[in-house]
Amino acid sequence: MSLRHALLALLSAGPATGYDAAKRFSGSVGHVWSAPDSQIYPELKRMQGDGLVESSAVRWGPRSTKTQYTITDAGLEELIDWAGRALPYSPPRDTHHLQAAYLEWTDAAGARRFFEDHIAHHTEQRQLLLAVHAGIVARTDPMIMRRLSRFPDSDHERIVAFKAHTYAGMVARSEAEIAWAREGLAMLDSLATDGGVGGGAAGGNSSIP
Amino acid sequence: MSLRHALLALLSAGPATGYDAAKRFSGSVGHVWSAPDSQIYPELKRMQGDGLVESSAVRWGPRSTKTQYTITDAGLEELIDWAGRALPYSPPRDTHHLQAAYLEWTDAAGARRFFEDHIAHHTEQRQLLLAVHAGIVARTDPMIMRRLSRFPDSDHERIVAFKAHTYAGMVARSEAEIAWAREGLAMLDSLATDGGVGGGAAGGNSSIP
Repeated sequence: MSLRHALLALLSAGPATGYDAAKRFSGSVGHVWSAPDSQIYPELKRMQGDGLVESSAVRWGPRSTKTQYTITDAGLEELIDWAGRALPYSPPRDTHHLQAAYLEWTDAAGARRFFEDHIAHHTEQRQLLLAVHAGIVARTDPMIMRRLSRFPDSDHERIVAFKAHTYAGMVARSEAEIAWAREGLAMLDSLATDGGVGGGAAGGNSSIP
Repeated sequence: MSLRHALLALLSAGPATGYDAAKRFSGSVGHVWSAPDSQIYPELKRMQGDGLVESSAVRWGPRSTKTQYTITDAGLEELIDWAGRALPYSPPRDTHHLQAAYLEWTDAAGARRFFEDHIAHHTEQRQLLLAVHAGIVARTDPMIMRRLSRFPDSDHERIVAFKAHTYAGMVARSEAEIAWAREGLAMLDSLATDGGVGGGAAGGNSSIP
């Protein structure tokens, strides 16, 4: 149900078309909760059916209209209820951690590539997240500006603080992944110089009975 | 497809029944990749159909048998191929980070409970992960003992190193979550002493360099 709540959170900053919502899911909101367009449109329709949003036609070019969604009072109530709810923790399912645990099945070059890719991915993520974080703190990010414009000044600090803290946490997580992968590279060096099997081909492949 | 590779990795330590596999997914392997029993049994059957595992009947009590799965050469090839593959990174989808970004929709008590629950969850996770990590490093964990018994001594260091490093990373991640949630509590204090509004700094900013 988190897509529903991500959409309610997004619409709490103002009305949006399905296209707007999809665009934001591929941008700022997407860093916290990603969803493909194919899920966003039907979910908005279901939410309308459940009375959480209402739709209206807005002009789109000279001859056509688009459906715009506005959060309803029931939608706001659901958002408030969700924000205070103790949500269950999902069991772990991380492809890369699974792969990391069994790198003895590849060779030293493959293991090295794994950690180098991990560093590259999280370095890029970190840069993206830092940029969003900076825009939130400076209140120059278009989404935060739009949101703040709809709430009294007295709420602004709280609104900014929670978003900045969330992004700061994601930056810290990327940094932890980079540090872990660097330690992995150092471990590979140490396995190689131990004169064990670290420098050779995948250890033990052929020794399975 | 990661369930398939988690199962191949598990079976690379020796044959297992569906029941054994399910038990291990609720234990050690489950910390890295979790799967419900309802997915494990049909996946093993599909893997048999694809020639990655083969099954045999083993005695189970005086009158019945159970199906035991053994990894085939094709299964080992798939495991080796997967271990060296550059796997795509999934887009982020973390319910609790999403919730953290919109805590302004709950009250101060709700926000405090969120961070306290986060600390409690990750403190428990950390303890579990530390215990598995210790068993891997000491080579007393039953799964690592079983695995090592099937490979030559010269491979042991590598096998242990990758698993220990994976668990060490997960411990570090739990610690990062705990630190982030503690900063969240400090941020709430600072928002409260500001009278809920006005000039204080968002605590989360502090971890940004």
